[in-house]
Amino acid sequence: MFTGLSAFPLTPITEDHIDEKAFAALIGRLSAAGVDSIGALGSTGSYAYLTREERARAARIAVEHAERTPVIVGIGALRTRQVREAAEDAQNAGAAGVLLAPMSYQRLTEDDVFGLFEDVTADLSVPLVVYDNPGTTHFTFSDELYARVAELPHVASVKIPGVPADPAAARVRVRELRRILPETVTVGVSGDAYAATGLNSGCDTWYSVIAGTFPEPALTLTRAAQAGEPDRAQAESHRLQPLWDLFARHGSLRVVATAAAQLGLTSPHNLPLPLRGLDSEDRARVAEVLRELGLHT
Amino acid sequence: MFTGLSAFPLTPITEDHIDEKAFAALIGRLSAAGVDSIGALGSTGSYAYLTREERARAARIAVEHAERTPVIVGIGALRTRQVREAAEDAQNAGAAGVLLAPMSYQRLTEDDVFGLFEDVTADLSVPLVVYDNPGTTHFTFSDELYARVAELPHVASVKIPGVPADPAAARVRVRELRRILPETVTVGVSGDAYAATGLNSGCDTWYSVIAGTFPEPALTLTRAAQAGEPDRAQAESHRLQPLWDLFARHGSLRVVATAAAQLGLTSPHNLPLPLRGLDSEDRARVAEVLRELGLHT
Repeated sequence: MFTGLSAFPLTPITEDHIDEKAFAALIGRLSAAGVDSIGALGSTGSYAYLTREERARAARIAVEHAERTPVIVGIGALRTRQVREAAEDAQNAGAAGVLLAPMSYQRLTEDDVFGLFEDVTADLSVPLVVYDNPGTTHFTFSDELYARVAELPHVASVKIPGVPADPAAARVRVRELRRILPETVTVGVSGDAYAATGLNSGCDTWYSVIAGTFPEPALTLTRAAQAGEPDRAQAESHRLQPLWDLFARHGSLRVVATAAAQLGLTSPHNLPLPLRGLDSEDRARVAEVLRELGLHT
Repeated sequence: MFTGLSAFPLTPITEDHIDEKAFAALIGRLSAAGVDSIGALGSTGSYAYLTREERARAARIAVEHAERTPVIVGIGALRTRQVREAAEDAQNAGAAGVLLAPMSYQRLTEDDVFGLFEDVTADLSVPLVVYDNPGTTHFTFSDELYARVAELPHVASVKIPGVPADPAAARVRVRELRRILPETVTVGVSGDAYAATGLNSGCDTWYSVIAGTFPEPALTLTRAAQAGEPDRAQAESHRLQPLWDLFARHGSLRVVATAAAQLGLTSPHNLPLPLRGLDSEDRARVAEVLRELGLHT
């Protein structure tokens, strides 16, 4: 489950409520495309903004509409108690795995974060992905902490924020991670712009934002890397560069939210307030890029 | 209400629940000491970690035990809908004002934050303090945004993160703020180490962490500044420097949480997990500083 392409869909929010029909359709689209797993309620799925009830409901919808595709459910929250509740709800919904980022308000210490993973994995009955996303959590794992956390029961994968852009440096980095992590723990790259380099350097998985809305090009890239055709994987990534540029400028969430609306997959406004969508000029640029890349239908 | 000393108490959490008895006693202590207002459920009051029900309950306890001291209640949350709910609950509890920080998970734009304040103030019936706390929200207000938000209805004060350490530069900074803010909006300094310089430079209020646990030295400092005795205010701040040093090292929350436990005001563990208290060596240093400053009883 923690290899290949893991696709992270939006959780569309319309009029302040989850648009359950649109969400179910997004999940079905990913399952039909043949992604290897679905990461529901990741950062792209706005987990941090939803209530316990909304998260439990979204987890059930995701599992139901994913058919045979395994669903990994995000369980992060600011307080350990809330994380444990989300884990319980995700398991009850039938999640195949859970994904945990150490969200922060007060700055977290390494001991805080280790304690969080220790407390949460103690009760768990499904595999867990350690989610290192400093851009949103404002916490950065040290390699020593990766190693300590990866020894905990149920830890099955580490979602790293990226790899060095230089392929040789990326290979060194992935080898380093392999050395400090147990053999049973997979390494997954995120930061879509780094995916080809990460997979070509030996990452097992791509935890992908773009695949949540556009699974096909992400599958092209992933299958090429898995087939031992690094140049073809890199070429697909180069082709998608205009999207990576938009991600760098606006954050990936706002771009895929705009794109999903333009494709008619969601209502025009699909993000939880206070997050506003892109302005009209930036929306026009997204539409232009989708047309250029043949992703507009 | 938005002048003088505003004291921000802990919301003690024991065995994963609010220790209501300890919280009520902390509030009573502040009221008895004669602070000008109480900031319940600020960052020091761990608002970001509590459920809607816990926050509503804490707001009611604070108002009840504050007697005639006005209570300002923190209403921040990641989602606008949750902020509006917290505002409603705070008002129903009898809050004299509310305090709003733009919490973030996805990075916020200036338009997102303006929209948040616009949406929340539209429904409000009590004054609002704009809470700029980049260390926890990871959002920094521009002066232009201060000015836009301060024009909204009900905005009564801006809680700034600090002032320049140099007194002349601090005076220039406070004058700048006066120029861009409406006359009815007070300027409050936070970051306790900056309080004396801030008040001496013309800030109207000190939004104070230390006053939430140790109101007396904070009142000494504030009353001196208000009496036009800047040197005496600065001298009290200098005397407290060992505390400011601990705040800089560990964050103010962990230090006052440890101090409150050492004074017997709360149980030994009083923070919401995953936040762990200080380790034994650091706790010993806090105890030593309290003894040196005569704050140990």
